[in-house]
Amino acid sequence: MTGEWEQLINEMKKGSIRALAGLITRIENRKKGWLEAMQAIYPDTGGAHVIGITGAPGAGKSTLTDKLTRKLVDTGNSVGVIAVDPSSPFSGGALLGDRLRMKEISNLEGVFVRSMATRGALGGLSMAARDIVKVMDAFGKDIVIIETVGVGQDEVEVVKTADHVMVICVPGLGDGIQAIKAGIMEIADIFVVNKSDLDGADQVVADIRAMLDMSTEKSEIKIPVRKTIAASGEGVQELVDTFFKLVKSGKSKTEWQDRRVRDELFDMLVKEIARHIRDRWSQDGKLDDAVLKVIHREKDPYSIIQELFPYFVNTQ
Amino acid sequence: MTGEWEQLINEMKKGSIRALAGLITRIENRKKGWLEAMQAIYPDTGGAHVIGITGAPGAGKSTLTDKLTRKLVDTGNSVGVIAVDPSSPFSGGALLGDRLRMKEISNLEGVFVRSMATRGALGGLSMAARDIVKVMDAFGKDIVIIETVGVGQDEVEVVKTADHVMVICVPGLGDGIQAIKAGIMEIADIFVVNKSDLDGADQVVADIRAMLDMSTEKSEIKIPVRKTIAASGEGVQELVDTFFKLVKSGKSKTEWQDRRVRDELFDMLVKEIARHIRDRWSQDGKLDDAVLKVIHREKDPYSIIQELFPYFVNTQ
Repeated sequence: MTGEWEQLINEMKKGSIRALAGLITRIENRKKGWLEAMQAIYPDTGGAHVIGITGAPGAGKSTLTDKLTRKLVDTGNSVGVIAVDPSSPFSGGALLGDRLRMKEISNLEGVFVRSMATRGALGGLSMAARDIVKVMDAFGKDIVIIETVGVGQDEVEVVKTADHVMVICVPGLGDGIQAIKAGIMEIADIFVVNKSDLDGADQVVADIRAMLDMSTEKSEIKIPVRKTIAASGEGVQELVDTFFKLVKSGKSKTEWQDRRVRDELFDMLVKEIARHIRDRWSQDGKLDDAVLKVIHREKDPYSIIQELFPYFVNTQ
Repeated sequence: MTGEWEQLINEMKKGSIRALAGLITRIENRKKGWLEAMQAIYPDTGGAHVIGITGAPGAGKSTLTDKLTRKLVDTGNSVGVIAVDPSSPFSGGALLGDRLRMKEISNLEGVFVRSMATRGALGGLSMAARDIVKVMDAFGKDIVIIETVGVGQDEVEVVKTADHVMVICVPGLGDGIQAIKAGIMEIADIFVVNKSDLDGADQVVADIRAMLDMSTEKSEIKIPVRKTIAASGEGVQELVDTFFKLVKSGKSKTEWQDRRVRDELFDMLVKEIARHIRDRWSQDGKLDDAVLKVIHREKDPYSIIQELFPYFVNTQ
């Protein structure tokens, strides 16, 4: 590890926000030495509670994250927020609003906000989220919130890296609610019905309860369903209370820990191997060769993969 | 390859729909011999044009796929349809409607419909889509349509496997349009503004044109923007004409071929390696060991990955 890394880590540990931001950027970009930096940071991690907030587009996740963060800060917690940005070219308006709101809470004492684009994350979105969480954790954040749209597999994977998952539903979204991926419902520790002043809120609560009753897997644990109106702040205190009760029970944390660590290790290993193969494959010309052979139909891709497998993989 | 595989492939080549469906199921499930089966099928592929249809939830993709399929059949084409199903527990109603519609077109002469769940696909969604496309192609389909919601990274990857991509937009979706991932806009060969009888349709067309004008990469190629009302069939014939014009020009096919083959080979190799590692790792107990070490904080995950890398990867 070079002196630059060491200096950044030291300054970060002393509380420099500038160093924290710099470290995150370098680690996200997989700058040489990132792995050693993560190893150096790791012993200071493990103190933060990580909350994943997800739901359909338009469910009010950003507003709820804002209100939740303020409430947590008011009760003496330092908070890190990772906002996963869907980075769509069509998203100008709404996302700009979200970002402005995020910028506002980032001015609060003890709050650090980091945006993450869904594309461009080297090593994948879930890897990047895990790394950023660990750096914020080592920095001393009591709570780290990861906020992401619950519609794609990559977003599901991001939210799975959290200790506690809040799934945000809203009345009247129809298609929107459907867009929540199946995998997310199963890992929810708390359901939130936001915009609960709208018609149909009680129906959404009833639907969620019915769904939870049907799921045998979770039948022993009572998953809480809370109503909020994030815009006015109604129900946010109750949500915070529910969250801390969950943390105290220790249930959700231990329940998923084995599975989460397993996924993390597997994910890290496969991503690292993919990166290694991509580097090696483009340098040694084997990929160019293979592409030409497939395009000219001299060889099928299945045979090529079979031949290349022992070249890349240690099969002994 | 066992006799069962050989028999299925022979019957499939003779036109048995039962054998076609059986082959797809076995290949999707990665039944022993699937790789050899794909190798045997491969020489018969390459004849089909593959259309990817994507867009926000509620854009009318299923209805458009239905109308497009009917129109293609009317003009003498045999069509395969792969419907990617978001498999959400909240999706009862709407998806059932989609499935019924799909069932209707599957009764048409020369049409074969296959549903695919976004989860559970061994080797990943994009791999499964590529395999199914190849089997339908070998069966003799002139056109294969892959229909999927354009909201998650996995769906973007699926649609990228197509030769020609149609992106469906609609007026008045607001948040819905934003949910289209950035990556999709860049690979669109045709834009469709569906439900074009609704207010704001011309504005959506103008927005798309403005976006295309800003994108320097595609400025030489004129990307068509077509208006349709899928429910009544209006504009579908013009869309088919636009598609065949595109096919004749050969542009979209050759343009992306190198990139697509490159992605396919890389994707296949990494997925195969991941499968190999998962099998080996769970059998030899190394994963269980590693998980315990991380949980008890005896070792950090970064060091574990570094140590295990040479065990799995041929680094010579």
